[in-house]
Amino acid sequence: MDFNLDEGIPILERTPSVISRLLDDLPEDWTRVTEGPDTWSPHQVVAHLINGERTDWIPRARIILKQGKYRRFDPFDRFFELGTQRPLNDLLEEFDKLRSENVATLRGWNLKELDLELTGEHPEFGRVTMRQLLATWVVHDLSHLAQITRTMAPAYTEAVGPWTAYFRVLQRDVRQ
Amino acid sequence: MDFNLDEGIPILERTPSVISRLLDDLPEDWTRVTEGPDTWSPHQVVAHLINGERTDWIPRARIILKQGKYRRFDPFDRFFELGTQRPLNDLLEEFDKLRSENVATLRGWNLKELDLELTGEHPEFGRVTMRQLLATWVVHDLSHLAQITRTMAPAYTEAVGPWTAYFRVLQRDVRQ
Repeated sequence: MDFNLDEGIPILERTPSVISRLLDDLPEDWTRVTEGPDTWSPHQVVAHLINGERTDWIPRARIILKQGKYRRFDPFDRFFELGTQRPLNDLLEEFDKLRSENVATLRGWNLKELDLELTGEHPEFGRVTMRQLLATWVVHDLSHLAQITRTMAPAYTEAVGPWTAYFRVLQRDVRQ
Repeated sequence: MDFNLDEGIPILERTPSVISRLLDDLPEDWTRVTEGPDTWSPHQVVAHLINGERTDWIPRARIILKQGKYRRFDPFDRFFELGTQRPLNDLLEEFDKLRSENVATLRGWNLKELDLELTGEHPEFGRVTMRQLLATWVVHDLSHLAQITRTMAPAYTEAVGPWTAYFRVLQRDVRQ
């Protein structure tokens, strides 16, 4: 699939409510579970998504759109505020608010095909396009949605007994 | 985590609205995408979930609860109606309806700890408990939620350009 705004924005718009629908008011056993040491709980994933709204996607898109001489993105701190003690419903609310504002900003730019080909400089990859940045925003959402549910399922690995055999999600070594 | 009804039912109740929130009215490019030959699209996953509501979870729990002499479950046809031409919004509606009824049935049984230890006979595994069956129902939901989002993300593998390097979900061989 090529990236285009009409197919990408619907995902960006839905993510906060999909995650809220899944996690809000759920017992903490579910929202604090991880896949093992150095892996993230659903709670931590939401904190990470908030940081993306604040410092990654739209700020980088602004740098590209401005087309100044210096177009290098600040590195994104993937681990920022992962240890936050803020309650999950606070985080979900903030993510929802920031994402709505950011999608409104994106829509407001009314980007054309040529705008999607404008470039910025990624600190690691070098030259990247607006189109690649926005497609990555969408994939980042989907990948963290997959992570949240993949993380929760193994909490019942013991509980399902012999059925473990039917679920790849209960067998995979997450470090691979 | 041990399985208990207070933690398991909230997941069962949420799944239809989580999936609807994600998929309803989304462009078909997203809902018909697969991970390759012999893998399922999000659309097909919903058809499969409907079949589970009709023929697997509650019907098997009824066999266990009845404690008759013959307690062998019918085999579950994982591939039933995967080729359905019914529109996705129809499927989402039916899944929501069936799941609500089934959760109401489960709640109505008001199962106690001893009921959760009652057993039935799985056609492949032999003796399984009500607790294992219900835990498997929950894991089945979470695992298909993970599958849906994991299936959608790689649609943009090309579109993200160099960012592919950051996403395990874009690199994994799904046949493993």
